[in-house]
Amino acid sequence: MPSLQTQLDLACQSIQHEIGVGKVADYIPALAQVPADKFGAAIVTVTGEKALFGDSQEYFSIQSISKVFALTASLNLHDKKIWDRVGREPSGNAFNSIVQLEKEGGIPRNPLINAGALVVTDSLLESKTTEDCTAHLLKLVRQLADNDSIAINSEVAQSERETAHRNASLAHFMQSFGNLKRTVSDVLDVYCQQCAIAMNCEQLARSALYLASNGTDPLTKTHIVDEERARRINAMMMLCGHYDASGDFAHRVGLPGKSGVGGGIVVVIPDIGTVAVWSPCLNVNGNSHAGTAALEALVRATNWNVL
Amino acid sequence: MPSLQTQLDLACQSIQHEIGVGKVADYIPALAQVPADKFGAAIVTVTGEKALFGDSQEYFSIQSISKVFALTASLNLHDKKIWDRVGREPSGNAFNSIVQLEKEGGIPRNPLINAGALVVTDSLLESKTTEDCTAHLLKLVRQLADNDSIAINSEVAQSERETAHRNASLAHFMQSFGNLKRTVSDVLDVYCQQCAIAMNCEQLARSALYLASNGTDPLTKTHIVDEERARRINAMMMLCGHYDASGDFAHRVGLPGKSGVGGGIVVVIPDIGTVAVWSPCLNVNGNSHAGTAALEALVRATNWNVL
Amino acid sequence: MPSLQTQLDLACQSIQHEIGVGKVADYIPALAQVPADKFGAAIVTVTGEKALFGDSQEYFSIQSISKVFALTASLNLHDKKIWDRVGREPSGNAFNSIVQLEKEGGIPRNPLINAGALVVTDSLLESKTTEDCTAHLLKLVRQLADNDSIAINSEVAQSERETAHRNASLAHFMQSFGNLKRTVSDVLDVYCQQCAIAMNCEQLARSALYLASNGTDPLTKTHIVDEERARRINAMMMLCGHYDASGDFAHRVGLPGKSGVGGGIVVVIPDIGTVAVWSPCLNVNGNSHAGTAALEALVRATNWNVL
Amino acid sequence: MPSLQTQLDLACQSIQHEIGVGKVADYIPALAQVPADKFGAAIVTVTGEKALFGDSQEYFSIQSISKVFALTASLNLHDKKIWDRVGREPSGNAFNSIVQLEKEGGIPRNPLINAGALVVTDSLLESKTTEDCTAHLLKLVRQLADNDSIAINSEVAQSERETAHRNASLAHFMQSFGNLKRTVSDVLDVYCQQCAIAMNCEQLARSALYLASNGTDPLTKTHIVDEERARRINAMMMLCGHYDASGDFAHRVGLPGKSGVGGGIVVVIPDIGTVAVWSPCLNVNGNSHAGTAALEALVRATNWNVL
Repeated sequence: MPSLQTQLDLACQSIQHEIGVGKVADYIPALAQVPADKFGAAIVTVTGEKALFGDSQEYFSIQSISKVFALTASLNLHDKKIWDRVGREPSGNAFNSIVQLEKEGGIPRNPLINAGALVVTDSLLESKTTEDCTAHLLKLVRQLADNDSIAINSEVAQSERETAHRNASLAHFMQSFGNLKRTVSDVLDVYCQQCAIAMNCEQLARSALYLASNGTDPLTKTHIVDEERARRINAMMMLCGHYDASGDFAHRVGLPGKSGVGGGIVVVIPDIGTVAVWSPCLNVNGNSHAGTAALEALVRATNWNVL
Repeated sequence: MPSLQTQLDLACQSIQHEIGVGKVADYIPALAQVPADKFGAAIVTVTGEKALFGDSQEYFSIQSISKVFALTASLNLHDKKIWDRVGREPSGNAFNSIVQLEKEGGIPRNPLINAGALVVTDSLLESKTTEDCTAHLLKLVRQLADNDSIAINSEVAQSERETAHRNASLAHFMQSFGNLKRTVSDVLDVYCQQCAIAMNCEQLARSALYLASNGTDPLTKTHIVDEERARRINAMMMLCGHYDASGDFAHRVGLPGKSGVGGGIVVVIPDIGTVAVWSPCLNVNGNSHAGTAALEALVRATNWNVL
Repeated sequence: MPSLQTQLDLACQSIQHEIGVGKVADYIPALAQVPADKFGAAIVTVTGEKALFGDSQEYFSIQSISKVFALTASLNLHDKKIWDRVGREPSGNAFNSIVQLEKEGGIPRNPLINAGALVVTDSLLESKTTEDCTAHLLKLVRQLADNDSIAINSEVAQSERETAHRNASLAHFMQSFGNLKRTVSDVLDVYCQQCAIAMNCEQLARSALYLASNGTDPLTKTHIVDEERARRINAMMMLCGHYDASGDFAHRVGLPGKSGVGGGIVVVIPDIGTVAVWSPCLNVNGNSHAGTAALEALVRATNWNVL
Repeated sequence: MPSLQTQLDLACQSIQHEIGVGKVADYIPALAQVPADKFGAAIVTVTGEKALFGDSQEYFSIQSISKVFALTASLNLHDKKIWDRVGREPSGNAFNSIVQLEKEGGIPRNPLINAGALVVTDSLLESKTTEDCTAHLLKLVRQLADNDSIAINSEVAQSERETAHRNASLAHFMQSFGNLKRTVSDVLDVYCQQCAIAMNCEQLARSALYLASNGTDPLTKTHIVDEERARRINAMMMLCGHYDASGDFAHRVGLPGKSGVGGGIVVVIPDIGTVAVWSPCLNVNGNSHAGTAALEALVRATNWNVL
């Protein structure tokens, strides 16, 4: 059997022609400036083995991937009660759609679409200032990645905050149904900060390792979430992790994962490890084109899919 | 033929049992406190004749009826260009629905639903402060009513502003599509002021008289809007003046009109005059129950319907 | 004041450059073959005066205009009970949309969209064979037009029947909610026949004259419908007569009317008369482009609008 | 470690109080008559081990579970081309919703909702009579279950066919978009037959075993579908197998599966085996209440979930 590094190398090399296909997110300047030809990948296993490829040390904005960490924090804080405020079904709509919110009385479909993530963030603000809440999330991510240098890109955060019209609309809408406890402004402040967390592939893969290991960090042995919660976070990622292309991702990759418009994707291989890929050009559904292709190639070679 | 006053008396007396049926708007305290048994009516003709009934001198919040005056101001300021930013078709949805906005790229269906009215208000803010804009609208209403004492109920305005979550959602949504030029906060500030204009039935009927007279105030001879614009405002009121019950209103009353959740309704009888009614209990669609009944009775007796 | 004929001539001549703009309906061959440059118009007044222009004697398929006659028949048969099965509000959607049906439990928005017209046709089938029902409708139209030669174009009817997939879908959908009493096949049989009634402009204008005259044919003095029903049919046409462009039509023409994809439009001028126009090229909303322009020009000249 | 039979016994005994909770499907008499207190379960492993519980030998209508077998047949016949006609994303709507079809041009969201399954059935009819097509499907199911006695309950099939209004609506709707090649009647004929296949738990578990074994029946070594196709069928079941409660099922059970309104559910444990449960009382989303509970208990005990 080839080594982990060889498997990663082969998979990534096989999809080099896919790099640059698609479109870099351009709704804020800080994202639009990222070179289209970047590509990085990293594998971390539950035994601590590692493999890196390409721009695996370069920082990118994790964006929606932060929703997984915020959900983890919220489940620890509120347990099942968070499911009273947000559903756990796929939405069948774009990530920022407001249609279902109207039909379903201000309860978002799941915590991995924007509306649901705003409710999750609101739930984290309970009796905290926005600064404390942001710090709390950042601390969690640093703990998960076992790396205290992880930081928020404040230029990205500010830029997101200034153009957060659609998210503001979603938040006000839920507020009108009583499904937001803090002000829209506070929720957006924290939300834009969490989206702007900058990580590299190695850190991102490392930070999701608890999800491959029943909720406990397999390297530090730190308990992060209960086993059942870890499994449920994986279920959410499997069904709703890639906006309105989660079915396509399940078809091609067959692993729980979460993507962000910064071009990052992280996937969980239960009991084995995690993989993070990054390439900024996105397909029409907002997922990294080359990143998805690399994961597909890797899973085909390793047979890591769970289905 | 009975006198105008007799006709109004008979119509209003015939529907006294309808007063109190329905529900007073209760989303803000200032509206919820209005006694359910109030009922007033006023007719003003293009020749200056008047008839009054019941609580015709009592002030109420005109709410959505202000959309007609704001549209008048906007057509004078921007002419047809406003129709690039707002449609003129019935919506087939609740007054505060956001569904069509998503489907139709941030262009509201018409200027008499909330989303459309927010765009109209935004168009009035062009190169004005919110104070100037509010003053401009109030001045127009005073001119139309030929009465300088008309004022804004600041308690209502402030209360609306504090609970304007749904309207904030609509405004941010349109902002995300570039269909709002000023900040959501500025637009809501003016919008909540205009909704809180307080008038009595006599003033309200008087203020719409230009619409019964080809755009020119028939008593002061002041030109308010061009004839064609006046007709188009009437067309909007005919098709979209009563939220998602405009068809029902056209069936029963058959006149262009506009209602507000404060319980007021004003209708235009082209070349004849205007009628304003007020009774705070609303039907399920948000229109004054007894007010609609009174108009239906009056139109049946006078044959004033246009259809 | 110019004569009726002069007014019609001037209005029609002023819009000759609009003829041919748009697109002839092409979903069935029989409609697609109609020459794009046809244009006819006819006015009939309640006193029996007439004015004709262009291809006013040429037959065309009345299509959706038949919905007005079917509604008239249904109101006579079922009175208000028909409103339990079909609403009277504008739909805010395309004429063949199924979305609202799902949301609103199989009750169509109004009798002038396809779903509503199918319910109306179903209501006419009560205790009749499809042949008797079709004959009944044709007899009504002949009576209204005071012309026994009016017939159904069976080629059009058959062609429509063979391609009625969307209408079959709407009908089955309502059937699943119990809002269809006869089989889908029977309802479609009659519906496609009624749509294929062929008339010329003169006959069409003549046939709607009862709606300009409180429900009674002003020339034959035949009572067709009660005054209130006539007014309500006009209200329906005013609010919903032109698919999802009824607001635009009200803005430009300001009269109750109904259009069909065959390129015909009929409008009612209460107490004055009716106008029928025909030109097969349709705008994006499915209404005759040149026909609407001619009506707009005529109404501007005559001031016949009701608003 | 307890034996397979002990594990099944314990799991099923632990949820006996859930039997009878919910509501037996009652849209056709043949389903409504099934006693509410029935409960059966069966495990079959890839090595041929078996465990049975309760009414595991009693026949029930597999209903929507047949969609998995039809999809298997269609992938073998058309390979990837079927994905041009049906998507593979969760719908976020009820199983029989028509809303998305309108928005998405007649392409159903996935093959496990009714609209998608109708397209799949249509694809199987290619150059076959309805009888041949039904026979072809039945033959496949018999092969999968390794049991030639499996049959269609013709009473159920006929009853479904007579009340298939909603499915007829979906089919005609897709036909209007050109996404149906055969007549609606032919497609419904086959579809209602496939839904009426009667199986018991043991047969049902056995028939899905190829999906736990990379597409090849592990006991007979018969190649059913390619490995990749098997995985993709599992992906579809994981994301869309339980109507609009697939997220909830993934949360609680964490295995690819498919439910039917007859009260059956089958799940796939890759490389291990399959489990079928049956209990006719359904939860609000149309899935067997006690069946889901039993699977949840079994998976918790065995740790068979894939997430």
